[in-house]
Parts: sequence; structure tokens; C-alpha cells
Amino acid sequence: MKKLINAPENVVREALEGIALAHADSVRVSLDPFYIARKDAPKKGKVAVVSGGGSGHEPMQGGYVGFGGLDAACPGHVFTSPTPDQMFEASKAVNGGAGVLHLFANYTGDIMNFDVSEELLREEKIEVARVLSDDDVAVQNSLYTTGRRGVALTILLDKLVGAAAEAGMNLAQVKAFGDSIRATGRSMGMALTSCTIPHVGKPIFELGDNEMEVGIGVHGEPGRQRLPIASADEVTEMLMEPVIADLPYKSGENVILFVNGMGATPLIELYIIYRKAAEIAAKHGLKVVRNLVGNYFTSLDMAGMSVTLLRADDAVVKMWDAPINTAALRWGI
Amino acid sequence: MKKLINAPENVVREALEGIALAHADSVRVSLDPFYIARKDAPKKGKVAVVSGGGSGHEPMQGGYVGFGGLDAACPGHVFTSPTPDQMFEASKAVNGGAGVLHLFANYTGDIMNFDVSEELLREEKIEVARVLSDDDVAVQNSLYTTGRRGVALTILLDKLVGAAAEAGMNLAQVKAFGDSIRATGRSMGMALTSCTIPHVGKPIFELGDNEMEVGIGVHGEPGRQRLPIASADEVTEMLMEPVIADLPYKSGENVILFVNGMGATPLIELYIIYRKAAEIAAKHGLKVVRNLVGNYFTSLDMAGMSVTLLRADDAVVKMWDAPINTAALRWGI
Repeated sequence: MKKLINAPENVVREALEGIALAHADSVRVSLDPFYIARKDAPKKGKVAVVSGGGSGHEPMQGGYVGFGGLDAACPGHVFTSPTPDQMFEASKAVNGGAGVLHLFANYTGDIMNFDVSEELLREEKIEVARVLSDDDVAVQNSLYTTGRRGVALTILLDKLVGAAAEAGMNLAQVKAFGDSIRATGRSMGMALTSCTIPHVGKPIFELGDNEMEVGIGVHGEPGRQRLPIASADEVTEMLMEPVIADLPYKSGENVILFVNGMGATPLIELYIIYRKAAEIAAKHGLKVVRNLVGNYFTSLDMAGMSVTLLRADDAVVKMWDAPINTAALRWGI
Repeated sequence: MKKLINAPENVVREALEGIALAHADSVRVSLDPFYIARKDAPKKGKVAVVSGGGSGHEPMQGGYVGFGGLDAACPGHVFTSPTPDQMFEASKAVNGGAGVLHLFANYTGDIMNFDVSEELLREEKIEVARVLSDDDVAVQNSLYTTGRRGVALTILLDKLVGAAAEAGMNLAQVKAFGDSIRATGRSMGMALTSCTIPHVGKPIFELGDNEMEVGIGVHGEPGRQRLPIASADEVTEMLMEPVIADLPYKSGENVILFVNGMGATPLIELYIIYRKAAEIAAKHGLKVVRNLVGNYFTSLDMAGMSVTLLRADDAVVKMWDAPINTAALRWGI
């Protein structure tokens, strides 16, 4: 295993210590239990947006905490759900009296732990609602999910729901806005290589030298097909067509197009993918009004990428353009 | 070779087409010859800052073009210097009458080609000056250089010199400011793995399963030592101590600390490195007043990282905090 770490069991804690040092201007970090909170939280009267999920998907979770983004994020161990006490303590710490919105991806372990945390919060008379992401069209049920997996749409939710809470929407409104994004966003991904979890020490699955997995999950879950490697244009088509067909996105619609890298795929390749994805969107009559290209929801050192589409009505565009000041997304400040 | 590309000979052109589509709000792209320019250039009376270098180091070159950054950037083919006509045409296109500053890293091929472009510009009565980066303390001369290699300090130069030109400094002032950054910035890098150039199709060098190269160049040039893999803390010390000793940085000084990923190293590991680098800086009495952590000057799919220190006087901090609106760095807008 080739990794720049000390002991595998300390990876998450030491990374959090690094985040605390690097981003002391915008966040504070709790090491017991693990969470990252906005420095200025709680904000009285503002809905607090709290996410949680496994580590290994950097810049998630902490990269989206800050003004116009998340109020707190709870990183689990690598590819492992955070525990209920993380979400409970983080939610209590950032609750400004207007309730807490939990934002997370649809995995069975995460749901169980968020369930418990929400029961505990309600016992403390803290109002709580949730928005799930389940945008992956590759498979209907999966290794760790009932229903679709939540993948890169999670990032767009962090940005947009964060902006909605910042704009002063109440808990019901923020939840409704988040649910509308969930309902109109779709993704699909692929991988050229596996990835290595620090405490496992070897690749979590095997892919042949000339193979790729189309429809893969962000933890290496099986996808739709294992195929010989194809060209960037062909691969992009294999992802974009099912994504467009699934909702379906219809000619004349405005969309946000997001090309996400899984970690080890160079940005030069992601722009080659974006070129073809934009061409396919245009061929279907979709108007790409905003976009994002880069490594925003990774799977450690996996080479691969995903494409995400989201319907972009005026409310979505307005919230997309609103200022954000986090480690991973920062504009308009 | 596992890459998301079409034909190796089209990689740079197709990536530029993707950049043109993704960032049409801030840049325009020339495909003959290759360059990326600010959409609003030329700006009358403003020094135009133009960089150039090989592709494969994304988000360089295009990621730093825009308001508060570069006026234009010239990407060569992967790990290959851009040609003189690229810098000549890009410089002419963005020249606003106040002269052009060329910004590039110290490699023999780049110097030869920038030399020719500058002769051509002077024949057209366009004033031109240059600032080099040669911040790599690992080796005195190298495979492709006389003198030190230019590495990650290039990114800090793009930001700071771009801000100085935006603030209205004249050509001599911008050059003097750039040279002061060159004089007070130092870097050193390491790699866990090699990387693969698309048209070569196999790793450009070999590293054993348990080996790392300390002091490596961004094109895989040999470093100081090939050693068994060590812990993140030990590796960070192997880079930070020579960097601090080289200038040397002295107790009580303010610095910018930059931990840069080579491409395939997950951000979670870069934060573990940052944690130790900040600790070592503090041990030497250095005050880290600003920082940057992420993949800002990559070597395709290489796993590895570098650390950079830059003296941060008031002028540097002011230019660092100035607004920037580029694909890779964006704040204050």
C-alpha cells in the first residue's frame, strides 16, 4: 500500500487536525466526536444544515462547511458511516433554534445512524428534517443500499441547500427545496481502477489491465457492466445517455452539468469528458446554464469519473450563484 | 495505459475545447496556436501577465487565467514546452499597451522558446519582461534544467503577480514584485508512484512497491534519494527541513505554507501532511499567515506531494487576499 499516512487508525483524526490548522478562519473541528462546524455557528434563527458520511470522499465532508454551505459535517472512518453521536453532537452544536436539516446519501448504514441521531435530537426538542441523495441511475438496489445510491448530486445539494438556509428559508422550505433537487438530479459513474482503504491495505476490488467498470458505486460497488476500456467519448456516452433517459431530461430544459473526478483521474481528462458531455447535452436540446468540473466527491485514489445532471430552474440558478465560502467551493465572497 | 482519452495526439486540443465550454464566462480559447486568454483582455493600460509550460500539470495552465490572475496561458503538449508562436500570439492578443510579463518555470526548453517569443515581441515594439520560478531545493542542476527547477511556487507567482498587475503596477514594478517572490520562495517534492504520458503509454520511470523518490521533479526527474516508504510525518520532515534551511527561513518570519498534491494523492493525505508541515514550521518559529492545500500543480496521475514556503510580508499578504476569479482559484469576487 502506497499512502502518505502515519497509522491507518489515525488517518481521519490527523486529517481533521490538518483541516483545523488550514481552515481556522472558517471552521472549528471537534475531535470527540469527530465533526467540522462553521466557525460562526450557531446562527440564531437560521436552519442548520448538517451532513455526514464516510471519509475517503474528500473534499467531503469538511470541504463544504462554511458560509453559504454546510453548518457542520460528520466524517465517519474511511467508507464507513459516522456514528449517531457525531450527528447528534454536531447538530446540537450548530442548532440556532430554527431546526436542523440532515443531508446525506442513501446508504443503509448512514440511514440507521441518522435515524438514531434524529430520535435523540427530538428528545431534546430540536426540530429535525432530512434530505437524501439517491441520484445514481446505474442500479436499482446495491451492495449497501435499498434503492438507489447517493453519489455526486450530494455536492450540488450541499451548495444549493446551504444557500437556501443562508437566504433565510425555514426548515420546511429548505427541506422542500432539497427534495426538489433530489427529484430532478441524476448521476452515473465509472472506474478505470480500484482504490485502497488505509486499514485494509490492498485494493478493494480487482479490475484487469484493459477493463473498466461502468456504473460503479463510490465504494467500488458493482455497476452495470465490466467492459474493455473504451474511448473518452464512448465512455461519456455510456453515462450521459442513461442519465438523460432516466428522469428524463427533455429538450428545451436548463440544466447544471457536473463532471466529477473519482480522485486519481487528471483534470485534463475530466475536461475531455466535459467536452463530450456538453455535446451530448446539446444534442438532446438541453441548455447547460451552469457547470462544475473537478474532484468534488472522490473515492480515495480511484481513477474514474461520474456525470451528473440537475434541472436548473430560476430558484436553483439563484441559489447556485449565491456566495459560498468553504474550503472546496468559494465564490462571491 | 488506463486513461480517459480519445487519441493521445488530441488530448491537449480536446481538453482546451472542454475548458472553452466549461469556462466561457471567464476565458476564450485559441486552438491555433493553443492558448487560453481572459475574456476581457486586452485591458488597456494594464500589464498583461502571460504564462506557459507543458500540459499534464493541471489545473495549470488554464486554471489560473482570469480576473486577478493570468491574462493568458500557453499549454504545450504533455510535459513539453509550448512553442514560441504560442507565447507570441497570446502576448499580442492580451497586450493592453502597458507591456507583457512572461511567467514560467526554469526548464531549458521553455527558456529557449520564451527567448524567441520575446525577440519577436520586441520586433513588434511590445515591451516584455520575465519572472522565472526556480524554487526546487532538491537538486542544483537537473535533467532538463541549468540551475534549479521551477515547481509549485509557480502557482503562488500566478496569484500574486496577477494581483499586482490587476492593482495597476507598471511592468518594472510587477517584475520587481515577482522577482522578490522568486527570491523568497522554496519548494521540495516527493513521489510514491510514477505517471504515464498519453503518447508514451507506459510509466515514465519505475518505483518499487515499497519505494519512494524524495526530491523528485514534476516530470519524474531524479531527486535526492530513493528510499523505502516512510510515514507521512517522516516524509514531511524530509521535505520541510531542507526547504527551511535553504533560504533560510528564520524564527519570527511570516510565511505562506503550500502543500501541493501531484495528482493521485487523496486530499485526506494532503491534510495529514499539512498538519505535520504546520507543526514543523511552528517549531522553527515561523508564523503561517496564509496557506493552500490541494492539487494545484500536478504531474498527471502521479501519487506524491510537495511543500512550498514563501516569505509573506504585508505586500504579499495584500496581493494574496486580493480577489481572483479563475477556474482553479476563486475568491473575493
